[in-house]
Amino acid sequence: MFSKETYIKRRDELKKRVGSGVLLFLGNDEVGCNYRDNTYDFRQDSTFLYYFGQPYAGLNAVIDIDNDREIIFGDELTIDHIVWMGNQPTIHEKAAGVGITETRPSAELATYLDRAVRAGQTVRYLPPYRGDHSLALQSLLGVKPGNEKPSVDFIKAVVDMRNHKTDEEIVEIERACNVTADMHIEAMKVTRPGMRECEVAAALEAVAQANGCRLSFPTIATTHGQTLHNHYHGHIIKPGDMLLVDAGAEVESGYAGDMSSTICADKTYTRRQKDVYDIQVASHFAAVGALRPGVPFVKVYELAAEVICQGLKDLGIMKGNPADAVAAGAHAMFFPCGLGHMMGLDVHDMENFGEELVGYGGKPKSTQFGRKSLRLGRELEPGFVLTIEPGVYFIPELIDYWGAEKRFADFINYGELEKYRDFTGIRNEEDYLITPDGARRLGKKIPLTTDEVEALR
Amino acid sequence: MFSKETYIKRRDELKKRVGSGVLLFLGNDEVGCNYRDNTYDFRQDSTFLYYFGQPYAGLNAVIDIDNDREIIFGDELTIDHIVWMGNQPTIHEKAAGVGITETRPSAELATYLDRAVRAGQTVRYLPPYRGDHSLALQSLLGVKPGNEKPSVDFIKAVVDMRNHKTDEEIVEIERACNVTADMHIEAMKVTRPGMRECEVAAALEAVAQANGCRLSFPTIATTHGQTLHNHYHGHIIKPGDMLLVDAGAEVESGYAGDMSSTICADKTYTRRQKDVYDIQVASHFAAVGALRPGVPFVKVYELAAEVICQGLKDLGIMKGNPADAVAAGAHAMFFPCGLGHMMGLDVHDMENFGEELVGYGGKPKSTQFGRKSLRLGRELEPGFVLTIEPGVYFIPELIDYWGAEKRFADFINYGELEKYRDFTGIRNEEDYLITPDGARRLGKKIPLTTDEVEALR
Repeated sequence: MFSKETYIKRRDELKKRVGSGVLLFLGNDEVGCNYRDNTYDFRQDSTFLYYFGQPYAGLNAVIDIDNDREIIFGDELTIDHIVWMGNQPTIHEKAAGVGITETRPSAELATYLDRAVRAGQTVRYLPPYRGDHSLALQSLLGVKPGNEKPSVDFIKAVVDMRNHKTDEEIVEIERACNVTADMHIEAMKVTRPGMRECEVAAALEAVAQANGCRLSFPTIATTHGQTLHNHYHGHIIKPGDMLLVDAGAEVESGYAGDMSSTICADKTYTRRQKDVYDIQVASHFAAVGALRPGVPFVKVYELAAEVICQGLKDLGIMKGNPADAVAAGAHAMFFPCGLGHMMGLDVHDMENFGEELVGYGGKPKSTQFGRKSLRLGRELEPGFVLTIEPGVYFIPELIDYWGAEKRFADFINYGELEKYRDFTGIRNEEDYLITPDGARRLGKKIPLTTDEVEALR
Repeated sequence: MFSKETYIKRRDELKKRVGSGVLLFLGNDEVGCNYRDNTYDFRQDSTFLYYFGQPYAGLNAVIDIDNDREIIFGDELTIDHIVWMGNQPTIHEKAAGVGITETRPSAELATYLDRAVRAGQTVRYLPPYRGDHSLALQSLLGVKPGNEKPSVDFIKAVVDMRNHKTDEEIVEIERACNVTADMHIEAMKVTRPGMRECEVAAALEAVAQANGCRLSFPTIATTHGQTLHNHYHGHIIKPGDMLLVDAGAEVESGYAGDMSSTICADKTYTRRQKDVYDIQVASHFAAVGALRPGVPFVKVYELAAEVICQGLKDLGIMKGNPADAVAAGAHAMFFPCGLGHMMGLDVHDMENFGEELVGYGGKPKSTQFGRKSLRLGRELEPGFVLTIEPGVYFIPELIDYWGAEKRFADFINYGELEKYRDFTGIRNEEDYLITPDGARRLGKKIPLTTDEVEALR
């Protein structure tokens, strides 16, 4: 948590931007995993954290702009709760910690909102992402689940504030990035043929936990890196394999790190692996070199994609003009995902608010396969924090799916491609802050080129 | 997963026991942690696992007893899903794996239930424990959230089947117990003064993960063991501390292990720690010695509590007759929780069905502080799997709360107790199977007495 002045300032700024109405902030509750009381690791809602700091379950808040009131709703602990779960600050203490003096029991939230609605005030809320949120909106405001109408003005104001990271936020993000880097370095140290993927995952996750961090997202540690979000960890790592690791730490304040690496199972990469790996690295550095304020990120994506197409053309897998291939969407056979995304209190920052509003400044996203998965497209501004993670993937199911209709046969040499169908995939990922005149890598450097990784092995 | 014959047999038995109606099984869905797509580690619903085996999100099932139909509802993957998340068996293959031939798209579930209701059939369902379940019951059956009326006949049939573990289930539970034991042995090996609690937690959780297991519940690894479910891991372990570890593994099939240990930070326990530790051990062995079919578990609890009262009386902290103290509830100052609980596909097996039905054979539970937390009270039967985990705790908040009114002053020597207010707490826990003539400890033995723990340190 930051000082209470930070939260007061943020709320004041938000009130100014939204201008009127009642802003409802649903804090998160515990979620049962396989029964009600066997709960998943509690995570506070990120926007609640941003404006109200407190990482406890069972809190909600209201900013009543029209009446200039800020209220945290919550209930004090019972002796049973203290015996089982330990003591906590009182609701009043929690509120005071973020500069709020008015607190009410949870049961009064419905009454408060009901009175506001009857007084003609507009109650604004954010998009739900858990069943509990939908149930709460139904019970508090009579909104039918699935028919929620989140306030676009509210979302836009939050997005614009959270997209621009302050210095004290950067300090937290960089702490997360440093632990994230250590997780990857640990993976590079321990990976050996004969291990199961879950053994590497265990070792790198232990680094996060030993540093008092949680994971910012479920770990990917897979010899089948062609599946972009592969969470299965049951394979044995064989000689000649590559292990794709995409993992990150989240520090106690909620800020995330997110990096990827692709580690050779043996002490060195094979010649063929290096050929493709070098394409990924070239694409990565081209993208990093293009980062600066004013550049539309979609252009950086296109640049990264073109470098991949050129490299694959040199290998004989693609053909034709790389820029034309990217414009047509043929690169998506090998690079079907985005180049990067905003990162902050969420690892895909504010993804739940809709990528158009967060990553496209409200403009529509492409619907083209591949390009539609680019979460960020807007012009870059100082204070944005984002990931750079181009990849080169050989996805057997996609090769078969497109290959059956010879899709983009002008750009894809399906005969040559067939030889790579079992290649799997390569991704490296770093985190960057957009500065007034360029970009700065966040956190400790991790080995990225094949030489750098081999030096550590 | 077991062979399909196991699931066929289980469903046939269930149909016979419930006799009529349509049984609705809601499989679990993904749950967003801080946004919709940053999901918690997926866990299938345990009852769904028990009757339908498949550990995938997005499935639901129906057993229509009246019309002798068994249907799994689910949707096939799209190419986008395969690219991002990897391939899976088809719905038909998933169903065939558990002996079911009829599958339908998810959207047809509502229609099926609607037709059943209009045909006068009774649709029976189990208690919800996630917001998503309540939303599903509302949308499928028009049940108002919070007003669900789960079928007691359905629950009772499931409880009776799941309470009696078969040999193939015991094999799975014992695998979970062996990994669980290794987690505790690792904690005993690594714990040192100067470490943070999270470092020990990281080391023991890595053992579970490296064995391809998930955690069966959130790890407790705390120097403040007096808080029964303390999930904070931020303290530095100091010389003279004890670290209470309560942690368990869950194997891929879903079965859980659950053990506890209390580890001295130094190489040995202090004299004062040994005095209290020995009371816990005496209580533990008294309880274990009493386990056999036909014995009401509430009697085992009372025996364990009396041993604790006698021990504390010997130390001068309690006074009077131990049996009278337990009858009055005075022991709950030091032992405010239960002695153990059923364990299986849930670590507190079927807790969500209500402890009266699972642990009391439908009879009411005590409401007395302490005794009300005994999750299991019924007569033991062969095939039951349960934990034994008496504890001795010194809870400052409870000492102050009861002390203010000198509650049970006939049994508690508050003057002497004050000297122990910072003692923290001790718990050891093992898992047992009730056999036809007694009980058998499940899984590898972990050091339990002070001598055994010290020998490993």
